[in-house]
Amino acid sequence: MSTAPGPVIDADRVLADLRELARRTGGEEGARRVCWGPGWRDARSLEAELLAEIGLDAERDEAGNLWAYLEGESEGALAVGSHVDSVPAGGWLDGALGAMAGIGVLRAWAQCPARPPSTLAFVDWADEEGARFGRSLFGSSAFSGTLDPAAVGNLADGDETTLREALAGNGLDLDRVLECGARRERLRALVELHIEQGPVLETEGLATAAVRGCAGVERHRFRIAGQASHAGTTPMELRRDAGLAAADAALRIEAIGREHGGVATTGVIRVEPGIPTTVGGRAELVADLRHPEAAELAAMLDEARAAVGDSAAARECDHSQEPIWRIEPIAFDRGLVAKATEAARSVGGSARALTSGALHDAAEAARVVPAAMLFVASLGGVSHAAEEDTDEADLRAGIEAFGQLANAALEV
Amino acid sequence: MSTAPGPVIDADRVLADLRELARRTGGEEGARRVCWGPGWRDARSLEAELLAEIGLDAERDEAGNLWAYLEGESEGALAVGSHVDSVPAGGWLDGALGAMAGIGVLRAWAQCPARPPSTLAFVDWADEEGARFGRSLFGSSAFSGTLDPAAVGNLADGDETTLREALAGNGLDLDRVLECGARRERLRALVELHIEQGPVLETEGLATAAVRGCAGVERHRFRIAGQASHAGTTPMELRRDAGLAAADAALRIEAIGREHGGVATTGVIRVEPGIPTTVGGRAELVADLRHPEAAELAAMLDEARAAVGDSAAARECDHSQEPIWRIEPIAFDRGLVAKATEAARSVGGSARALTSGALHDAAEAARVVPAAMLFVASLGGVSHAAEEDTDEADLRAGIEAFGQLANAALEV
Repeated sequence: MSTAPGPVIDADRVLADLRELARRTGGEEGARRVCWGPGWRDARSLEAELLAEIGLDAERDEAGNLWAYLEGESEGALAVGSHVDSVPAGGWLDGALGAMAGIGVLRAWAQCPARPPSTLAFVDWADEEGARFGRSLFGSSAFSGTLDPAAVGNLADGDETTLREALAGNGLDLDRVLECGARRERLRALVELHIEQGPVLETEGLATAAVRGCAGVERHRFRIAGQASHAGTTPMELRRDAGLAAADAALRIEAIGREHGGVATTGVIRVEPGIPTTVGGRAELVADLRHPEAAELAAMLDEARAAVGDSAAARECDHSQEPIWRIEPIAFDRGLVAKATEAARSVGGSARALTSGALHDAAEAARVVPAAMLFVASLGGVSHAAEEDTDEADLRAGIEAFGQLANAALEV
Repeated sequence: MSTAPGPVIDADRVLADLRELARRTGGEEGARRVCWGPGWRDARSLEAELLAEIGLDAERDEAGNLWAYLEGESEGALAVGSHVDSVPAGGWLDGALGAMAGIGVLRAWAQCPARPPSTLAFVDWADEEGARFGRSLFGSSAFSGTLDPAAVGNLADGDETTLREALAGNGLDLDRVLECGARRERLRALVELHIEQGPVLETEGLATAAVRGCAGVERHRFRIAGQASHAGTTPMELRRDAGLAAADAALRIEAIGREHGGVATTGVIRVEPGIPTTVGGRAELVADLRHPEAAELAAMLDEARAAVGDSAAARECDHSQEPIWRIEPIAFDRGLVAKATEAARSVGGSARALTSGALHDAAEAARVVPAAMLFVASLGGVSHAAEEDTDEADLRAGIEAFGQLANAALEV
């Protein structure tokens, strides 16, 4: 099955490590590895044990990312890894798969008589999920330099603990987190294995696929103001129904997603006063638009804004809007994507690369270093839940493809 | 301006009484006359004073309705009145206008040398709004016999006081409320003046109009179950978006209201989990359908149920439904509606009778006695709010038309 020279990753061992991680930090209620807390530190301890077993020391950088280096023929390093933090009651594979597979790559080479052509760097990014403070991709964006420490230090959790305090509780200084970027110098490339968290591969009956990049996101809030009035006494032609204007806008936004080949979601539709006997006086909707191409994404946003305006005007409602969050599409490295595609094909996976609709640490890393990802199918597309799972055969295929990809990327 | 023989109602005095009522039981925050409480009892005290001033005693029946009789040439009585209870922070005219105008009719005849051709009965129905316990038209439905005391006794307010206890606190016994129906025997007809609580008259530039009946209501709850999934990773064609199915259904229900010449309102649209990054997994909507004709109303409900089914099926969602509340359309007495229309025309009001989309005590009374109503324009259609108001000229026209209607109805 191997197409690139190098040792074959031991998928059984990776699966065993994943199960041990779940045993220590999971349970019926799902994964308990919210970053900066005890479950997450337990996961880090397991990683340190696994690395020690192959003779490597775990190093923690200024942003809390965990690194281990297996020296190769050349100084420049290929990074492999993902994250072990989870959302509360999360799944056993999200992040953990890529972390354990990363250690699996180092293990395969450590047990090999030859040194790898390049240095292998294992990385476990801190706080990918942002589950506690709302800032996802914390460690990887500190690494890439896009994190603004001043803007996140006062983010607080439900107990009024700030991110700055949570970092301090883990021996980290928020004012120094960007110093982890010094590790960029040595990095030559990065590859990450992750579950898809969506239904595409399962629907196509495929175990694994390369990822060509992460879609850009435009998240916008719209407010519509009509006139609350009596459901019995207000004739249809005299209504200014903000709820129906929002409903109409949500359907138009859906059509925009389809037309552009992106995704467009209106997950928030709120109508006030929200009682059966009153015509909706105010409504709110939040549109989340995603597309891998910046121009298409911009067009989607323009059209969504116009659609909400049209929907509001059609019912004589006023409207306002505000951007909530946005990120440009991020393309992965063409050469690495080609290698990832070849690796996926070699295990019977997809011959074409997918676009990730979700963001990943590899997308942050891709800002400063050539990067690519492999996805493994998710059962039912379910993630961020205790039910998150993947067929074992698909996991094995994905892990083996990732081993191939790492070997191929080491050769460059 | 008079078309029926009899004294002319003193509209200025009725307006003065309304203002005195507002002075005692209103304020900047709106009317404070929620039934069974102190503000409502203050309003009752004012009514008793006004009736005493014209030599009449106020009698309270077993359901808490207030009556006063001005004996006429014949024993059979024409009832005039409305209600003085309000919603919390309600308007100064809702109910109060008809109550004060009813006293105004009795006052006009009391000051007249001749006795009225029939007895005049003033009635102030208890708990029209149902604001505290959720059961509207309490006193008038006890009178008509449609109230089931056993079904309402344990309705509780926010302080866990039951309706039975609130009645007892006002010296009333829930088990005896239906005994007030004995007063049906003497009643020959009933007319009620009320604000429209909708925008039709104002839009048409008319002060007042007859009401030909109250629309029937079908109120239905629909639940739609799709699949919550990641907004970024779920392709448009693999979604089962319950929120968009609900949005689509709400728009179809609106169209049904228009097509049938009724009103159809979806005032409740809820989407779960209701977050920007998740496709709606579950949704709920409540449709309130109203039409003056029973067959049309039934057709609207059939079509609304089919529409929700189609909307859900189109997005591969499941759905369920449950009726919340329903009431048949109630037609007022043709002869009285004709007299009300003539009275409205005589003051420059509408030449055609309206259908009331809201329910009124007169609709309950209409089950057992010929009844009709007059509406007065509402500014902006606003009611159940401190801003509720009507142009003084329109109030005056409506009160004068009501005096005409009472005189005409006394002659039958």
